[in-house]
Amino acid sequence: MSAIAATPEPPYYAVIFTSLQSDQLEGYGETAEAMLSLATEQPGFLGIEAAREGVGITVSYWRDLQSIRNWKQQADHREAQRRGRSDWYRAYTTRIAKVERDYSFPNPI
Amino acid sequence: MSAIAATPEPPYYAVIFTSLQSDQLEGYGETAEAMLSLATEQPGFLGIEAAREGVGITVSYWRDLQSIRNWKQQADHREAQRRGRSDWYRAYTTRIAKVERDYSFPNPI
Repeated sequence: MSAIAATPEPPYYAVIFTSLQSDQLEGYGETAEAMLSLATEQPGFLGIEAAREGVGITVSYWRDLQSIRNWKQQADHREAQRRGRSDWYRAYTTRIAKVERDYSFPNPI
Repeated sequence: MSAIAATPEPPYYAVIFTSLQSDQLEGYGETAEAMLSLATEQPGFLGIEAAREGVGITVSYWRDLQSIRNWKQQADHREAQRRGRSDWYRAYTTRIAKVERDYSFPNPI
C-alpha cells in the first residue's frame, strides 16, 4: 500500500485515523489486512494511504459522508473497532474532513 | 513527533501531504527538521502528525485557509518546496481539507 491514492476531482471526503498502538498486538496484523481489503469493496471508497512510524496514520478517501457512516457501521468493521479499543490501541483520533482542493507533483492524480 | 496532535474543536483545516521520496536525499533531513520547526511558529498552526513507511504522510492542522496560504508562501518554505520538486520527491499530492468532526479514544483530545 506504499502508494499515493488516485482520487477524483474534489470535493470528496478524507478520514484521517491517527493511532498509537499498545503492546498487545495479537490478531492485529490479520485484522488490519482484512479491514483494508474490506474497505476497498465498500460503496463510495476512493482510496487509502497508510504509514506507521511511532504514530500510525491511515487516510482513507470517500465519496461522501454517507459512505463513511456505512463503513463505520459495517459489522466486521465494528468488531475490529471494538478489539482496537480493548486490545490494540493505546489512543487514537479519527477526523472527518472534506477535501476542497488538491494538487500533485509531477502530474495530476 | 510520534504523537497525536491535540487540536481544538472543529471546524479547522488539515493539509494532507503524501509523498514518495527519490533516491537523492542530500539535505532532506535538515530541511525537513527546519521546516517542521518553522511550521510550528506560524500563525494559525494547530498541530502536525507524520509517518513514513514506503509512502510518507504528513498531516498538518491549521485554523483557517489563510494560515495555510501564508505558510505555503513563506520564503524559506518556498525554497524547500522548490528543492522538494527538483531533488527529494518522486511524487507528492497535497490535499486541503476542512475537518468537520473528530473523536478520540480514550479521551477527548
